[in-house]
Amino acid sequence: MSEQLQRATEVARVGEGVYRGNVAADWDIGGNANGGYLLALAARAMVDGTGRPPLSLTAHYLAPGRPGACTIEVDVLRAGRRTATAGARLRTTDGSVAIALLGTFGDQQPGGPAVVDGAPPDLPPYDDCIPLDPPAEGSGFGQRVGVRQHPDDVGFAFGTPSGRAEVRGWFRYRSEPSATEPFDVFDLLLATDAFAPVCFNRPEFPVGWAPTLELTVHIRALPAPGPLRCTFRSRFLQDGMFEEDGELWDAAGRLVAQSRQLALIPRPAV
Amino acid sequence: MSEQLQRATEVARVGEGVYRGNVAADWDIGGNANGGYLLALAARAMVDGTGRPPLSLTAHYLAPGRPGACTIEVDVLRAGRRTATAGARLRTTDGSVAIALLGTFGDQQPGGPAVVDGAPPDLPPYDDCIPLDPPAEGSGFGQRVGVRQHPDDVGFAFGTPSGRAEVRGWFRYRSEPSATEPFDVFDLLLATDAFAPVCFNRPEFPVGWAPTLELTVHIRALPAPGPLRCTFRSRFLQDGMFEEDGELWDAAGRLVAQSRQLALIPRPAV
Repeated sequence: MSEQLQRATEVARVGEGVYRGNVAADWDIGGNANGGYLLALAARAMVDGTGRPPLSLTAHYLAPGRPGACTIEVDVLRAGRRTATAGARLRTTDGSVAIALLGTFGDQQPGGPAVVDGAPPDLPPYDDCIPLDPPAEGSGFGQRVGVRQHPDDVGFAFGTPSGRAEVRGWFRYRSEPSATEPFDVFDLLLATDAFAPVCFNRPEFPVGWAPTLELTVHIRALPAPGPLRCTFRSRFLQDGMFEEDGELWDAAGRLVAQSRQLALIPRPAV
Repeated sequence: MSEQLQRATEVARVGEGVYRGNVAADWDIGGNANGGYLLALAARAMVDGTGRPPLSLTAHYLAPGRPGACTIEVDVLRAGRRTATAGARLRTTDGSVAIALLGTFGDQQPGGPAVVDGAPPDLPPYDDCIPLDPPAEGSGFGQRVGVRQHPDDVGFAFGTPSGRAEVRGWFRYRSEPSATEPFDVFDLLLATDAFAPVCFNRPEFPVGWAPTLELTVHIRALPAPGPLRCTFRSRFLQDGMFEEDGELWDAAGRLVAQSRQLALIPRPAV
């Protein structure tokens, strides 16, 4: 895990299944904590509670993640030989639940035959890709995370959406050398919600806030060091909602995580 | 909802957030309740608790669904204007949690521009498709649900897997006339786990038990009457696990649900 993410997601066990932490003020987009950051923060407590890394983790987003002290309640529902299942809630300073989670935890079991029908996105070099969309540049999240998007996928920022509900790009941190970043599962959780919403690239929809209702991440392998190559796309944008499917590939060309979120299409300005 | 599913998923509120129900003995595959049936059963209690239909529902499967009395504990975490979020656990007769759930509930809000990059599978007529794989034929589930699979996708049952990790087919009930089935969201939940695991169609893997770790269903529209056309496929089968993505299309040609599950690849017989 990147050192800065580790610091920003520290939790302390203060009772049976109860953890204290802090929603950092400087992992925000426009004042509210990034969704992937909240996921990683809650996962720190769940990993401590189950003693294992996540295999599959779902979060539902109920309220904005306001900065300040938070409490994470972890409820281990079953701990078996190979996996453990736990639920959790992250409450912010005012006591309201910001995110609710449910996950199964356990170690990867590498080996056996593999079928891989896909590949990392074909990206220009990092320096030729485009930083996060401008609003996030002015936020804490954009200062920390060095997301760079494919030049073909950032047209929405200039009023010329690509027409494909797709965003591809690099994920790394700004502060660390790109070749040796010791990514782990928490960085993967963060990376699943770090890019611009793919609906921005369809001209039918306005660019605006696209709140996540639900986000599920499956960890498919432990990542090799180095930046991730990521693809996000949606095939069904209807009735005010869209799914966004993410694939995260490590520097060794291996699929390390899949994500899917259900989110609200931004509303037209009135 | 089909009348038989309605009967088999009846729940009664017996206390604050506590429901009693019954895991039917005759919705099983090989003695254990089908995963989609358990999902629909737990969802009945969650829908009662939140007063709304599911938009996104995740289940983690912890233990087999043994027949008999069950208790469903529903915890409404937030009830807002448009949506409500709730967690739940279904405990079987011995008190163990068979499935744990987390979902967001609310009404569909049809309208606005739509982008649909996909179509229902191109299937031969129902009568020319092939019933569920033989083991399920001898189980209660196969007696009730009239799943018929595309002839090109059932080679695994004859020792000649298609080579594509894909299964397409029709979903309906056996007992009801196909054209007028009044499907609702509970039937959709059931249909997401009613077909043969797609890993069966890759020759690298044995045909056997492929236990679901996690299943997430997004309801994308309310279904028109009539049988569903469904596509399930996987792109990443590695390290003993595979994701299976489902698309459910109604008789009017509309995408009504998406599912994704993370499951274990069957182990070779020893």
